Amino acid sequence: MRKSIAIDMDGVIADVEAHFINWYERVYGIKVLPRDIIGKTESEAFPKDGAVHKFVVTPGFFRTAPVMKGAVEAVKKLTVHFDVYIVSAAMEFPLSLPEKLAWLNEHFPFIGWRNIIFCGDKSVINTDFMIDDYPKNLNYHKGTPIMFTSFHNANLNHHIRANNWDEVLELMEKER
Amino acid sequence: MRKSIAIDMDGVIADVEAHFINWYERVYGIKVLPRDIIGKTESEAFPKDGAVHKFVVTPGFFRTAPVMKGAVEAVKKLTVHFDVYIVSAAMEFPLSLPEKLAWLNEHFPFIGWRNIIFCGDKSVINTDFMIDDYPKNLNYHKGTPIMFTSFHNANLNHHIRANNWDEVLELMEKER
Repeated sequence: MRKSIAIDMDGVIADVEAHFINWYERVYGIKVLPRDIIGKTESEAFPKDGAVHKFVVTPGFFRTAPVMKGAVEAVKKLTVHFDVYIVSAAMEFPLSLPEKLAWLNEHFPFIGWRNIIFCGDKSVINTDFMIDDYPKNLNYHKGTPIMFTSFHNANLNHHIRANNWDEVLELMEKER
Repeated sequence: MRKSIAIDMDGVIADVEAHFINWYERVYGIKVLPRDIIGKTESEAFPKDGAVHKFVVTPGFFRTAPVMKGAVEAVKKLTVHFDVYIVSAAMEFPLSLPEKLAWLNEHFPFIGWRNIIFCGDKSVINTDFMIDDYPKNLNYHKGTPIMFTSFHNANLNHHIRANNWDEVLELMEKER
């Protein structure tokens, strides 16, 4: 039987770190360097004016996020041997629902509607693997959680870690 | 530990049967009687012109659906003893995403964003109970499926059946 994988969007297939850095510089004129925010929370990394919350409720933010390096090719490869579900905690930001769906349809057109899940709490998502950047999602997963490296989780060691999409493919190669 | 319930929207907390009947009469001038469509599929019940598909892709359809009789009070009661998730296969109709969320916020304001899931395939939803009107969703559920009576499932006997929200409460009373 094919195994299933839940793959998160923000910080995993969507490069929201780069997007925050770009918007922060554009709006506040402050250039944040990736190396300076390693281990910080989102609000420590972008402290001005509640910037992160302002950005994520701004129309267009999610629709224009850059794709994470290597994600399209890797996810496409995974769909050959696994049932891949894109699972995003989009419900917190209602405006993001149509934007995230349009973004997926543009960049990941090979993921059909049956395999997309927008939720709040991910604890009821039952897949064999979960690839996510947030321990709050991974900690309650009943399958095998894989922490995708992001600046905010750099100092955590809860779970198996994948630093990039090549490492995800390496890990999953053994699980087919 | 509190048990969890996944509750479907269309045909369970949203009375899409009544909504189809109203729209069908308004658009085609044909009055369909509930007793005449028992055991029929949606397209047999409303055969004109691909009506059902036309309605569900019409802006406003999901936003204006009437609430199923007794649903608000019953779901509110269930939240006292269970973790209730509203789980809708909304991804098939992208336009429905913001409409369904606005509808839930209006009629079920006590259901927070953490407990709302819009998906395609419901097979990865892991709850102790699932209340749904479609066998295609219930058949793959790993917990206890409960079939909520709808005209289209009247002749099926796959699962425990609840004919209305009073019967759901009766069933769940024993499961606390």
